[in-house]
Amino acid sequence: MRIKLTIEYDGTAYAGWQRQENALAVQQVIEEALTKLTRARVVIAGASRTDAGVHALGQTAHFDTESRIPPDKYAFALNTMLPADIRIRKSEAVSEAFHARFSNKGKRYRYLIYQSPHAGALNRNTHAHVIYPLDGEKMRRELTALIGTHDFAAFAASGSVVKDTVRTIYSASLTRRGDELELLVEGSGFLYNMVRIIAGTLISVGAGRLEEGAFARAIQSGNRLDLGVTAPAHGLTLMEVYYREREAP
Amino acid sequence: MRIKLTIEYDGTAYAGWQRQENALAVQQVIEEALTKLTRARVVIAGASRTDAGVHALGQTAHFDTESRIPPDKYAFALNTMLPADIRIRKSEAVSEAFHARFSNKGKRYRYLIYQSPHAGALNRNTHAHVIYPLDGEKMRRELTALIGTHDFAAFAASGSVVKDTVRTIYSASLTRRGDELELLVEGSGFLYNMVRIIAGTLISVGAGRLEEGAFARAIQSGNRLDLGVTAPAHGLTLMEVYYREREAP
Repeated sequence: MRIKLTIEYDGTAYAGWQRQENALAVQQVIEEALTKLTRARVVIAGASRTDAGVHALGQTAHFDTESRIPPDKYAFALNTMLPADIRIRKSEAVSEAFHARFSNKGKRYRYLIYQSPHAGALNRNTHAHVIYPLDGEKMRRELTALIGTHDFAAFAASGSVVKDTVRTIYSASLTRRGDELELLVEGSGFLYNMVRIIAGTLISVGAGRLEEGAFARAIQSGNRLDLGVTAPAHGLTLMEVYYREREAP
Repeated sequence: MRIKLTIEYDGTAYAGWQRQENALAVQQVIEEALTKLTRARVVIAGASRTDAGVHALGQTAHFDTESRIPPDKYAFALNTMLPADIRIRKSEAVSEAFHARFSNKGKRYRYLIYQSPHAGALNRNTHAHVIYPLDGEKMRRELTALIGTHDFAAFAASGSVVKDTVRTIYSASLTRRGDELELLVEGSGFLYNMVRIIAGTLISVGAGRLEEGAFARAIQSGNRLDLGVTAPAHGLTLMEVYYREREAP
């Protein structure tokens, strides 16, 4: 039986999602709990290979098992075994055709910014701290250039080897609440570090360090240098992975 | 010169505000940094002795010093020395008549609740987790009984030795955002554990485990047993300490 998990984690203590040598990854922690629970070696496939420090409220993964545990009970059983910074929000049976990574139709990410003279204590692991004032209106204008289907070749970390760099961004919004700015971006898929590069560029434009129109220029040129720096990992949260079809904006 | 500090901290790693034997308190960490910075032994007086696990966005404290560091520079200097879970938001000169604890005219607290079948990972240190559904309307009706000047003798942890238990509550509100409920309470002062007892009672009323009217009954009777359990410390944050006069509601 194939089981889909919806997973929340605080990425602070982990070397990212993907299992690796010499460092603890979220995938490994869940696989070890599942292996103990089902008494058979379990390998899980995640939708997104989030980096070290990146959080998730809606990561998804699937695994196959011959265990007869009712599908919805995995969440409750795993949550008694997992450390408190990893929680299973939902477990459910899916068809054999479902693949957490290859079946998904899109993702939604959040990037949080704390704009203040001093860093925060309570939000130090979830918000990127920015000292200088940010012009929210400028940032909102900048975001509109992302919407739609574009070649985002410039928006990938250097060294990235993906061939097809065309993606569709369905929505991109910025909301301010006091000292906090929340960026939400929803798209068909994202290149490696793409949301963090978007956030870093947006901060530079908002601070007046980069001229408005950076996103449009970079889409045109395909040049990573037309964009700002990659914003820190800990501001990023994978909010949701979609498996339903969406219409282009 | 007397200096006032406005302090933020994540209380997770600390045994509370107040310096004590055998456990690390926020006060001690700040005093040690100040002693190092000013090269003279510094003792600080905090406005509120928050418990272990309780957070602050606006704790205040004062200290006296002969150092010639400009008053507003303490925040910047201390923030380079303090651990990331304690930040000084502001430092300023105040008169010798100012006392962080005795001069304050009121405080505002926040209590955060996460209502969900599974505990959260990202909010595990800031929200009290409640599994059962909560009736927000019922909780809001319940809160109205707190407003005004009352004898809150029933609202103190047993063993409390304060004689005068009359306090004024200026406002109490509950806001729901998805799975999150935010309780804000503002008053002239609070008895030991008072906000956590208010939160615990409110959760019991919202869950239908305690009959509506509990606050009114407890104000009348002075009996701690008319209220619900003390809600967990980690849901509580000291938001602000006021030094200006307020009018009664």
